[in-house]
Amino acid sequence: MISSTANAQVKDVVALRKKPKVRREKGLFLVEGKKMFEEVPRERLVKTFVSESFLKTPENRELLGQIRYETVSDAVFSYMADTQTPQGILAEVKQMEWTLADLFRAEAPRLVILETLQDPGNLGTILRAAEGAGISGILMNMDTVDIYSPKVIRSTMGAIYRIPFFYAPDFREALQTVKRRGVRLYAAHLAAERCYEEEDYTKASGFLIGNEGNGLTDATAVLADAYIKIPMEGKVESLNAAVAASVLMFEAARQRRQKKKQK
Amino acid sequence: MISSTANAQVKDVVALRKKPKVRREKGLFLVEGKKMFEEVPRERLVKTFVSESFLKTPENRELLGQIRYETVSDAVFSYMADTQTPQGILAEVKQMEWTLADLFRAEAPRLVILETLQDPGNLGTILRAAEGAGISGILMNMDTVDIYSPKVIRSTMGAIYRIPFFYAPDFREALQTVKRRGVRLYAAHLAAERCYEEEDYTKASGFLIGNEGNGLTDATAVLADAYIKIPMEGKVESLNAAVAASVLMFEAARQRRQKKKQK
Repeated sequence: MISSTANAQVKDVVALRKKPKVRREKGLFLVEGKKMFEEVPRERLVKTFVSESFLKTPENRELLGQIRYETVSDAVFSYMADTQTPQGILAEVKQMEWTLADLFRAEAPRLVILETLQDPGNLGTILRAAEGAGISGILMNMDTVDIYSPKVIRSTMGAIYRIPFFYAPDFREALQTVKRRGVRLYAAHLAAERCYEEEDYTKASGFLIGNEGNGLTDATAVLADAYIKIPMEGKVESLNAAVAASVLMFEAARQRRQKKKQK
Repeated sequence: MISSTANAQVKDVVALRKKPKVRREKGLFLVEGKKMFEEVPRERLVKTFVSESFLKTPENRELLGQIRYETVSDAVFSYMADTQTPQGILAEVKQMEWTLADLFRAEAPRLVILETLQDPGNLGTILRAAEGAGISGILMNMDTVDIYSPKVIRSTMGAIYRIPFFYAPDFREALQTVKRRGVRLYAAHLAAERCYEEEDYTKASGFLIGNEGNGLTDATAVLADAYIKIPMEGKVESLNAAVAASVLMFEAARQRRQKKKQK
């Protein structure tokens, strides 16, 4: 059993938790908690750590099945974990290897495109909602928060393993590729004249969502095929980024359901 | 200038920040940052604190105008503030005094009803989205997180000052009152047969949203007039509570726009 925070494996985990650079270099990320562990695709699982207390419950031991694991003392586990009340299980997992092409696997792709999104909770929530709304993939610029940060992973509730995503080294070029593939790009903009529900999202569509404080850059907004607004009552100036993205994604899903019914 | 964390006023602020009970007893809450300060209804402002550095910028002094304030050292300000990089201004503000009746001021009220919502970020995000979607009011049970906690306040982006809300000491009785007022209650439920867009929200409507982990209690769900589902693709089991609430609220807003256009 590992009972010292000076242990090399413990140090590796803490570095993976805290440093995007270490995650990138090793091609790994951390997964915490029973539910998130349960959903790890088995071929991606690299190393599993459990706390001493965790092993005391038969149900927990069952969850581990035939998987090899390291046991660590409860104190050391708390030190390794990102959550304040850890469930006693965490794992190193291989990063996903999606390409830009993977975002287009659907017949009429629906994309969410994020520019410099900064809040990990927002990114995780968008992934979770995107899977539910049947989005084909998430495209991000390099300045968007690291999708493998523990807080993003937690908020995805497992969608991280399933929805294709891609960080574009050349964001502008990637947007051009998306457009060449026939995807119509929509930019949510308060000054837009058309309400979002007036557009047809049953065709290939991409929703551009900008930074929480500053919205989309002009350089990106100019690539949009259409500006749409989510009309606002009261004095609210804008919506939370995950809420805005979700309203658009679920309107697209609603339109597709309606179209199917009409057929 | 206040330069000690032992100062009584400093202690008062910290207690207000940390303790729902203290906030309740004093009928006050804390507001941090320039934007949130700017939007405080002036008659609610009780006491203002600024950091030494804050006063160095002419623009900041202008924001204060004729308002009396206490200056505190930067170190003490950091101690008082809830945020990691405080903007140098915070204020004690009188709590709002809405009644249940205030939630019905609209002609066809649209309510959001929260049962034991626990995440402050979710509650704040719902308030912000609710104002944007033209919701008439928010009804909550007593086990819902304290709306005056600093994290909720921040996420509302000012909606806290404008949207009526009410914590019902007797939640069940309040729901009965809501129903007697002609509000049709909708409960989002994964097992529901009808998709949410198939209902008519142009009439008086209330959306029941449950706890993040456990959803609605049976005792509450049974009071719903209709169960609705937000259909999900992929393996996602549920949506983040703020996302689910927003999808419903903005569908209601969309239907009202459509109805207006048809007239």
